[in-house]
Amino acid sequence: MSAINIAEVRAWAREAGAHARRYFNNVTAERKADRSWVTRADVEIEELLRERINTRYPDHGVIGEEQGGGVLDSDYVWCLDPIDGTGAFVAGLATWCVSIGVLRRGEPYLGVIYLPILDDCYWADADGPAFRNEQRIVVSDTTTIDSNDWISVASNAHRQFRIDFPGKTRGLSSIAADCCYVARGSSIGALISRANLWDLAAGLAILRAAGAVVVGLSGAPLAVTELLQRRKLTEPIVIAPPQLIATLRAEITRR
Amino acid sequence: MSAINIAEVRAWAREAGAHARRYFNNVTAERKADRSWVTRADVEIEELLRERINTRYPDHGVIGEEQGGGVLDSDYVWCLDPIDGTGAFVAGLATWCVSIGVLRRGEPYLGVIYLPILDDCYWADADGPAFRNEQRIVVSDTTTIDSNDWISVASNAHRQFRIDFPGKTRGLSSIAADCCYVARGSSIGALISRANLWDLAAGLAILRAAGAVVVGLSGAPLAVTELLQRRKLTEPIVIAPPQLIATLRAEITRR
Repeated sequence: MSAINIAEVRAWAREAGAHARRYFNNVTAERKADRSWVTRADVEIEELLRERINTRYPDHGVIGEEQGGGVLDSDYVWCLDPIDGTGAFVAGLATWCVSIGVLRRGEPYLGVIYLPILDDCYWADADGPAFRNEQRIVVSDTTTIDSNDWISVASNAHRQFRIDFPGKTRGLSSIAADCCYVARGSSIGALISRANLWDLAAGLAILRAAGAVVVGLSGAPLAVTELLQRRKLTEPIVIAPPQLIATLRAEITRR
Repeated sequence: MSAINIAEVRAWAREAGAHARRYFNNVTAERKADRSWVTRADVEIEELLRERINTRYPDHGVIGEEQGGGVLDSDYVWCLDPIDGTGAFVAGLATWCVSIGVLRRGEPYLGVIYLPILDDCYWADADGPAFRNEQRIVVSDTTTIDSNDWISVASNAHRQFRIDFPGKTRGLSSIAADCCYVARGSSIGALISRANLWDLAAGLAILRAAGAVVVGLSGAPLAVTELLQRRKLTEPIVIAPPQLIATLRAEITRR
């Protein structure tokens, strides 16, 4: 029995997504110090989610993209990205999403990722399988890669990596969406070059439940507890079904 | 006064898009001989559009992705891509669209591109400006490129090109969508490596109306009449606002 009512979290994600959608194609974007985009929708949605969580789970910690961390010595830490993929949001593309992940003692516990434009909710409870809406999802079981298979890559991958993947590359501009498309077996992998904890927390829970592997480009395991402290990846990570991870890693080199 | 009622064409595109949407996330894809994806939705939609066009404009030629060309010595030739971006469609992504272009004596005349998931209709009449829904659009007027600016690239660009663009690259998996995002000033360019006439015809009319330039990677002008005969590009093309085209071309080299 999960300590958190995931049906309620899914409802919060939908509520947040509906709120964000009102700003879509109708937003004034500003440049943040780190040159990424922030929008009023981002800030409002993080506040909305924090209020819901604090009311329902007052002992839990919350860390979010916009406001940073609160009480992080709690067993349960919520990791919020109110709009993951603000670049896509501002560009008028559909892959932005609301990402709500929970860590328990530093390990991915559950995740909910909602893409409002596609009306797709990806989720995995603490001990269950992964779902897209009401449908179970698993990673691809393919063992051979052909020209129609695809991976998602960071939008600056052309500058950072040489990619000798024989299929297609797509940039979804959202790390949470990258995770979802691997989890559902649509893409066969993802290359993520920079991420914060809130970009990944929900995705990691969904990926684990869907059977994916997440490792550093060097092959080193991903240390989520370290991510919880440093809040940024120390090296690019590769996500894939277990049977493809070694092949994919070998096809990617730093430029 | 345009020879074609574009409001009616926009209604056809919406009708076609609504039909396609019923298959979205619910489709059995097959591999065509050329390894691209074809779906039942593709075939049905081309038939639907051909029927509408033949009834209303019986003297016009029609060329489409699925059934090829009909009477092409007509002054007006309709170029149909029932679902441009079938790869995106099959992957569960949102950038697939219905693309309806008309050439007049071998030159782009008008274009309608409808993205059902985003509910965005891009269009340009024979002699008017370009629109997204009811809103006028023009290409970006930026003269400097920074790390948040983006171009769209083909999903196999990582194998074909070295791209030294300082901003972001995204793969929309639809040539028609590539054109729309440049036309609305969201992206500042697109690199298209392979295209057939039906992928480009509508986009070219919209791009022209929005103020974009379309040239070969070598700098050679795009010969639409040649595209009408050969039906495929002879070299990759670059699309951009006039003030950025030279810069972009210089940042792209074949691998």
